[in-house]
This record gives sequence, C-alpha cells and structure tokens, in this order.
Amino acid sequence: MAELIAKEANKAFSILKTLSGQERSDALVKIHDGLKVNKDSILKANELDMKSASENNLPASLIKRLDLSKVGKFDAMLQGVLDVANLADPVGQCTLARELDEGLKLYRITSPIGVLLIIFESRPEVIANITALAIKSGNCAILKGGKESYETFKVMSDIVNRTLKEETAVPDAAVQLIQSREEVSGLLSQDKYIDLVIPRGSNALVRNIKSNTKIPVLGHADGICSIYVDSEADISKAARILVDSKTNYPAGCNAVEQLLIHEDIVKDSQKIHTLLKSLIDSKVYLHVTREIKDKVADLDQSFISDVEDDSFDKEYLSFDISVASSSSVESAIKHINEHSSKHTDCIVTENKETAEKFLQGIDSAGVYWNCSTRFADGFRYGFGTEVGISTNKIHARGPVGLEGLMSYHYRMIGDGHVVGDYIGGGGQKAFAHKDIEVNHI
Amino acid sequence: MAELIAKEANKAFSILKTLSGQERSDALVKIHDGLKVNKDSILKANELDMKSASENNLPASLIKRLDLSKVGKFDAMLQGVLDVANLADPVGQCTLARELDEGLKLYRITSPIGVLLIIFESRPEVIANITALAIKSGNCAILKGGKESYETFKVMSDIVNRTLKEETAVPDAAVQLIQSREEVSGLLSQDKYIDLVIPRGSNALVRNIKSNTKIPVLGHADGICSIYVDSEADISKAARILVDSKTNYPAGCNAVEQLLIHEDIVKDSQKIHTLLKSLIDSKVYLHVTREIKDKVADLDQSFISDVEDDSFDKEYLSFDISVASSSSVESAIKHINEHSSKHTDCIVTENKETAEKFLQGIDSAGVYWNCSTRFADGFRYGFGTEVGISTNKIHARGPVGLEGLMSYHYRMIGDGHVVGDYIGGGGQKAFAHKDIEVNHI
Repeated sequence: MAELIAKEANKAFSILKTLSGQERSDALVKIHDGLKVNKDSILKANELDMKSASENNLPASLIKRLDLSKVGKFDAMLQGVLDVANLADPVGQCTLARELDEGLKLYRITSPIGVLLIIFESRPEVIANITALAIKSGNCAILKGGKESYETFKVMSDIVNRTLKEETAVPDAAVQLIQSREEVSGLLSQDKYIDLVIPRGSNALVRNIKSNTKIPVLGHADGICSIYVDSEADISKAARILVDSKTNYPAGCNAVEQLLIHEDIVKDSQKIHTLLKSLIDSKVYLHVTREIKDKVADLDQSFISDVEDDSFDKEYLSFDISVASSSSVESAIKHINEHSSKHTDCIVTENKETAEKFLQGIDSAGVYWNCSTRFADGFRYGFGTEVGISTNKIHARGPVGLEGLMSYHYRMIGDGHVVGDYIGGGGQKAFAHKDIEVNHI
Repeated sequence: MAELIAKEANKAFSILKTLSGQERSDALVKIHDGLKVNKDSILKANELDMKSASENNLPASLIKRLDLSKVGKFDAMLQGVLDVANLADPVGQCTLARELDEGLKLYRITSPIGVLLIIFESRPEVIANITALAIKSGNCAILKGGKESYETFKVMSDIVNRTLKEETAVPDAAVQLIQSREEVSGLLSQDKYIDLVIPRGSNALVRNIKSNTKIPVLGHADGICSIYVDSEADISKAARILVDSKTNYPAGCNAVEQLLIHEDIVKDSQKIHTLLKSLIDSKVYLHVTREIKDKVADLDQSFISDVEDDSFDKEYLSFDISVASSSSVESAIKHINEHSSKHTDCIVTENKETAEKFLQGIDSAGVYWNCSTRFADGFRYGFGTEVGISTNKIHARGPVGLEGLMSYHYRMIGDGHVVGDYIGGGGQKAFAHKDIEVNHI
C-alpha cells in the first residue's frame, strides 16, 4: 500500500513538473474557492474532532491548536492559500548560463525536488498551507495528519482531491492524504520514490522519524540555543535579550536554554545580580554551577538549583535555564559548539572584535549578536512562509522558506556537439566557458 | 577509535572555520612545497605499491591508476594544489542582506559544511586533490584510500600532517588519513560528528556506503543515461551523438546505456539502418526489443541480441546498449523517468517544441538537447574542479564543484532587539524586511 502511494505520487510528479506556473497558481485559487464554499462542512467535521478530543481529555494546548472555529482562523487559512498562489514562481529560474563553445550552452534551472512526505500533528490548517506550498513549488506531497484531527482532515482532503481532479490541470495524486500510522512506517522506507520528509511537530516525532528512514529529513529534533554574555556586555541589554529569549515563548525551538556568563561579570556582584534577578523576576528557574551559586546568595533561592549532569545538553522548553561561567569568548565558542544543537546562538557584547570572533566561530544555523534568539523564524526573516527550521548542514539550513523545496538541474543545448572533439575527450578543441546573460535561454 | 577520529576532526573544524582565506590558501602552498620536496620518497613508496599490485595480479587498469611516476602526473598533482589555492575564497560570501527593522540586520553567509568523510579507491593523487579542496573550503576531511595504495598514501599523509602542524595555522587534525576497513564502518556511524560522506570509486563502493550510513552521501551509485531519438531528429547528428556518448569512454558514469527511438524512425528502414549501423561500426553490441529486431535483419547479427528483463535498468559500462521503440516524446519521458538513474538524459530532435517538452519533463540532474551525454562533468561545465557527480535531489545536484562543499548560516545583528516588541511576538512594531546592499555587513 505504501509503495503504491509513493509510486502514484512519483507518477503525478512527472505531470506536475511539466505544468506552467500559471496552471499551478490557478489550482491554488480553485482549492481556496473549494475550501471557502465548504466552510460549514469543514467546521462541522472539526467540531467532531474537538468533541472527541475533550472526551479523551487531550491537553488544552492541543485542543486549542485543533480548533478551526476560532475567530479569523479559517479566513487566515484561506488567505494563506491565496498568498502562496501570488508568490513569484520558484520553478524554472535560470541561475547560471554559460557558453561552453560556439552553439553549446549550459544552463542551471531551478526545479522542484519531487515527492515530499509531510507528517504533522494536530493543526488541521497545515493541510491547506502545505498543499499550497507543494503545488506552488511543483512538488507532490503525501500528507499524514495526527489522529486527533481525523474528521477535519478527511473532509478537507476530499475537497482538495475533488477540486484538483475536476477543476485543475494538477493531477489529484499530486496531493495524497493518508491516515494510518502503519502507512507512515511503510512510506519511510520508500526512498526510491520519496525525496524528502518534512516532520512538523514535537521533538519526539522528529527524532523518531530521523531514526527510521534513509530519506533526507528537513527539520530539527532539538533547539538547544545558548546566549553568551561577554565581559564587555551592556548588562541591561543582556537582561532584556535574555528575558525575551527565555520567556517570550518557552516552548519554541528558538527559546534560549543555556546561559554562559564571562567570569568578570560573574565576579561583579552588582552585574551578576542584575542579570539573574531579571530572569527570576520573570519566573525563570536557574540551574547553576557552583561558581555561579556562590555569587547569588542574595537572590530568591526557590528559583535556584544546582546543575545536573545533563543540564548543558538539555532543551527545557519551559521557564528553566542552565547557567555557567566562561573564561573567554573562545571557551564559550568551544562549549557551545560541543553542546548546542546548532540551531541559534547569541553573544551579547559591545566589543565588535569579540562579536566577530563569535560570529565566525559558532557552527550553528543562526549566530546572533545583541538580539533575541526568538528572531529565528521564517516569517521574522521575511520569507513569507516557513516550511520548517533546519539544523542540517546540507541543503537548506535555518528557517526554510519556499526555496527549501527547490532543487535545480542542468540543461545543455548543442547542435550535434560531441566530447570526442575536445581536449580531455580525445580531440583538440578547448572549452570557452564564457558566462552569458541568464535570459539567453 | 572511529569516534575519537571523528571527534578530533570536529574539534579541528572549530579552529579551521575561524581562519582567514589567506591562512587556508597559505597552508595549501606549504603542502604543495612539502610534496614537491619529497617527490623522491613519494615515488619510492609508489614503486612498492606498484610492485605488490603486479605481484598480486591486480588488473592493468587499476595498476595504471595507481602509477604516480607516469610523465607529468606528479607535476599535474602539484599544480592542482596550487590551482585550488588560487581560487576565490568560497567562505564568508554574503548571499542575502536584509534590514528587519532599524538597527536589526540579517545576513546569509556561506560557510563550510564541517567534517567530510572521503573514501576513494586506488588513485593516490586524490589525497592531494581532496586535501586541497577541503582546506580551501574550510572543511575538515577524514580520508580513506584503497589498500593497494597503502605505501604511497602513508608517505603522502605524513607529509601533509607534518606540514600542517609545523608550518601552517591549520590544525593537523583537519586532515586525517585512515587505513583500516574496520575504521570506515565505525566512522559511517558517527553521524553526530561527520556531516557528509563522499565516496569516489566503483558503483559497488558507493552503493555499499549508501546502505550503511545515516550521514548524507554525495555522489551516485548508478549512471543509467538515456538518449531519445525523436521522429524529427537529424539522423547523422543522432548517430554522431550516440557513438560519442557510448564509445568515448564506456566505463564513465555519463556514458549512454539506453536508446529510445521514435517509431517513425524505426519504421523508416534507411534511417534505422544508418543509426544502428553507426553503433555497430563502432563495435557496440545492441540489445534490442522485438520491434527493433524486425527492422535490422540486414545488419551484422553478431552485434545484435534480444533484450532481457533488466535491460532497461542496466548500467553496462561497456560497448553495449539497450534499444527500444517509443511512440512519442511523452512516452519516452515516462520511460526515462521510470528507468534512468536521474543522472543525464538527452533528446535528439530538430523540433524546438518537442525538445522543450523533454527538457521540462525529464527529472534528471542533466537534461540535454542535441549533444553527447559525456559532457556531464565538472571540468567540462567549467567548475575547475570536481568533487563528484550527484544524483541526489537535495543539496548539490549533477557535477559538483567547490560550492557543493559549502553550506551557509544566518547572522543577525541588533542592539538589544527583542521579539516581544513586534507583531506576532506580543508587541506592535512591524518588520521592515528591506533588502540592503550585501556589502553593508
């Protein structure tokens, strides 16, 4: 079954990739219209999901994410589909054009990746969001939602498939929606037909997927972000950045979990007091090393505990932070490169040279100077839409917009040119390798 | 042991990534000098390898690749190191610069990937080549050569490590050379410390590595390239392209293995005769379907046999080619997308519209029109150097130059900016998202 789904997606991709940008955008408008017309039946299905969620005593935060009837949420979802339809076409952009010899031209052209497997948890509006992104970028998508949104998911997927089939040039198998958990594990082994897995949900979900597939996974399991407060930091700036990074949304992957403080600040009783009191005033629990503990006897001890063995490798996702002393920017860099999850790390300092050392030395997707780690986000970066945040070192890194769903291919156009005529291939001709205008295609 | 090697490489990367382009290039010049001064001892070691290779009756082609004493080969290797040293620095290029708000700026900067594990077979000059590429791009490399080049490898690696340690700012653990097969399998499981595996060698080697690691692998196992001869093809052009694609270097991954011919050509006895006779005249064996066989009774039958079940999924790497009839460009696209290895595929036609259908419909790293598949090569593309040819859909695709060894990261520079002030984070401020000059960093 899983193989059939993957094969169908692969076949649909062969058609989808030949459609024009206009045809792909038109399909999104039709999907928008279909969802809009069927708002009532979608919200009715959503009510069923909400009802069984509360009957099953699911957590309030999950129920909230499930709820499509919240004022403005449905319309925002619809608008999101139109917004994606109106983006510039990411397919078919020429990024390199080169004449190899007279009449022999090489072009590098952006193209979709192929078949995406997208696995997400409760939020049903992700169906509309991801469907729009996939079709816009010429990729086929296999979507698996959480079981708690089953009814909503079913109605919405029927509408999407019916619309594609009846009203658009996009094959309906370009977006397939699956329900059972068994199929997911089957799909994770279809590396012949599926090109990229995008999990959107808890760390546990992502970690589980990463360890059960050979298909590349775009995303991150952990967000262990650090802030280093340098000896030359402006302490009120540091406090402001720390409080925002920790408390603005502690469950976010871009929330800070680790705090390193230069020993000169630790030794300065007024500075260390100001810095850590600002966190305690915001109800943050500090997990501190011995050196720090010695200096904070005057602070509310109910917010202070000793670090444990794993404190510096921990993603709390709560009002907790680990705190250690650091002897220099070099030792902070070393500590962070060893312990962080390569998501986003920040230095607070007024010294440009020190900042530059940090910016160059830290091996993470985001390296910040004097601003909150919470800025690590596709919308805040201005990408308009966010596919996920990647801590991979290859392909897309950091917050990923539509371009993370793109690959490229090379086109070569000749007139009977053969390698045997050229040096290295047995002949005497040399290559020209002259860059030409990209619009010459 | 494998973990230690990987950890050491990771530690060295923390230092290497902070060095300037000048420091990295200077190190390459020193390595060049070290290899040059020690030419005699390297060639003496190479003699030992050659001797045991012939004692062990290794194939002549392998012994030829092993031989560093061939006129010009050693000097070409040395020159290669200098050529890489003189390339533009790929690290630290700003590819996006955006003002999010007054005083809050976002930059995207090219950066090395991290730790590369490079596994190659007999050719000892690869050590110099890959060492140069790795250091130039700020990546650390763990190199594993074939056992048949053990002595050469050992002497060269001692020189590289001694030079790095004594004469350069690059830590000597930035390039580690390992010998035993056991260590390779241990290293393939170090996905915490190793970021990319690059195998350079036989398909069997690549396939084996791909199925034994969770680390991304850059390369290709198969090169199953196809040529489609359209009904509107110029037959002499088609013959010329076919013969070059098949016979210029049949062992190459970019050699053609599959030939599809439009049925109108198949039905035209003169055209099909011309086309296939040109291959037979070049000593190519044709594996043909029933429809083709019916039409070629007048050709030398000792070069013609029936197709077998796997003929269209086969990489011959020899003077063999599978031949089938195709009813249209659409069916050729479908056939190729199902059977090719997504390496390089070509259409021969004089009809632009048909060619464009093919160029857009084929899902391969290279899609060609009227030229030999043998052009699929980093040097021929003008990349100066080639890391490998990738059939992956993510990260680098097709022939990969130095930029395939690069990633990027985001830098954000503020002055105490926090998310809580902005819309979406709890505040009222809107983001500006104004693109700025990239040299404003």
